Amino acid sequence: MADATLLACDWGTTNLRAWTLDGRGSVVAQRDFPLGVSKLAPGEAAQRFEAEVRSALNARRLPAILCGMVGSNIGWTTAPYANCPAGLDDLARNLTAVADEVCIVPGLRCDGIAGGPDVMRGEETQIVGWLAQHPDRQVGRHLLCHPGTHAKWVLIDEGRIVRFVTAMTGELFAVMSQHSLLKSDAPPDDDDAFDEGLAAAGAGDALAARLFTARARVVGGKADAETTPSYLSGLLIGAEVASTPQLLGVTPERVALLGDATLCDRYRRALTRAGVEAETFDGEAAAVAGLFALGGRA
Amino acid sequence: MADATLLACDWGTTNLRAWTLDGRGSVVAQRDFPLGVSKLAPGEAAQRFEAEVRSALNARRLPAILCGMVGSNIGWTTAPYANCPAGLDDLARNLTAVADEVCIVPGLRCDGIAGGPDVMRGEETQIVGWLAQHPDRQVGRHLLCHPGTHAKWVLIDEGRIVRFVTAMTGELFAVMSQHSLLKSDAPPDDDDAFDEGLAAAGAGDALAARLFTARARVVGGKADAETTPSYLSGLLIGAEVASTPQLLGVTPERVALLGDATLCDRYRRALTRAGVEAETFDGEAAAVAGLFALGGRA
Repeated sequence: MADATLLACDWGTTNLRAWTLDGRGSVVAQRDFPLGVSKLAPGEAAQRFEAEVRSALNARRLPAILCGMVGSNIGWTTAPYANCPAGLDDLARNLTAVADEVCIVPGLRCDGIAGGPDVMRGEETQIVGWLAQHPDRQVGRHLLCHPGTHAKWVLIDEGRIVRFVTAMTGELFAVMSQHSLLKSDAPPDDDDAFDEGLAAAGAGDALAARLFTARARVVGGKADAETTPSYLSGLLIGAEVASTPQLLGVTPERVALLGDATLCDRYRRALTRAGVEAETFDGEAAAVAGLFALGGRA
Repeated sequence: MADATLLACDWGTTNLRAWTLDGRGSVVAQRDFPLGVSKLAPGEAAQRFEAEVRSALNARRLPAILCGMVGSNIGWTTAPYANCPAGLDDLARNLTAVADEVCIVPGLRCDGIAGGPDVMRGEETQIVGWLAQHPDRQVGRHLLCHPGTHAKWVLIDEGRIVRFVTAMTGELFAVMSQHSLLKSDAPPDDDDAFDEGLAAAGAGDALAARLFTARARVVGGKADAETTPSYLSGLLIGAEVASTPQLLGVTPERVALLGDATLCDRYRRALTRAGVEAETFDGEAAAVAGLFALGGRA
């Protein structure tokens, strides 16, 4: 096994995933830490990184590159956003050094749909990693979707992120499942109910009205309450897929899905039903590729 | 003051509002009770009605008429839904007697937008009361909106409710304000932020993406976090108003708003901005009129 030359971290709100990488970008070791920035006391990021992450990965002297919410105002330090359009070179030019050979990747900012900005932190590293993995996608125009609590729809042109829009679909699912009339502990794993939800999503309009159909199908005796989370997931993802790309001025024929495999599968199902070709790519591998590419530029 | 001849109750999920009415339908006395059906132990509705409501209103021997969730499976007894189209006569023919001279008004059911049913309990009584108050609205076609936790958009033709659709706008506002990234205790009373939310609602599509603009305008330094509830209220009501009537096959020029005055005002503001004429009517007076009209038919 080759020696590790870089410590790479995807340091998010709830979790920290760290890898040591060799000189070709292959993973030497990997560890997760329950050190998401939402769980840190103010000012303790540096100390816990040194004491816990470096020691656990035997990486006391390696240069390190970090992406995600660690660069937000509740993280280690605020790493200013880079502006779109931006690709690997633009991110590399805007790294924020927080210690000797420790850098944070900037988040990205673009003009949003309502006059304000839109922002991401963490996904940009996966996206430039995905572009590095797929040189053919560095040419021409591509639409990428990164599902999650705050899903990102991303327009890429000639290898740079041109514009993106965030949809709070995952958060809507969570708060409705936990706190509304539609609440349920059942897992969203019923494909038939998911497809029913997709069919009820229409063109992605009138969501508050379409949501009530999740209640009515149970009250009306058409479905078991246990299938509500699957129906709700289909309804929300179906509505997102039907109406969000248009906000970027795009009616897609093909979408690259990047992220968690289970979630990407649900989006692929929704896109396929809507007649859109969908390919799925592993978010973790893309994060490693992005951190490696950026670590080499620090 | 004339003698009371009827005990009328709007008995909902969280509250019970009771009136005694004279022979012409005028209010003799009114009281609220914290006896919403969600707070009742199973089977105790009858006893608490007799012991608390009748005694407080000095109405031990009056005939009584009840509407609302008291007719649901967590209320006094399940009063079967009447089917649309339905007007005053249809409701009167479908009252459910639960004791000597005590009747519950049926809820209404119609075909929903996704194959299942749509349902209401309580609003039907206000609507037939409103029709009784306004004989001119018993002729022709009218679109009515009853804002609330579950807002109802109601198509009326020749004095009968033809079809309706429920929008969970109020519940979406509540769960997002209390449990999401957009949570805030600030009151939704900032007109400018409300109007900003209306402008961001677009055609009522892509709601999950439009919701993120509530976050982005604060993160981007364009607005104070205290204005988020007002912005969110404008965004959700704007989206509802822009896209829900179409589910009933209607592009409205004029909408009758019936219900809580503060909420109706917000809807009127949204409708007016969208170029739709809106008139506001008092929901409580309509409930009294509806219960009086139905009580006379029991």
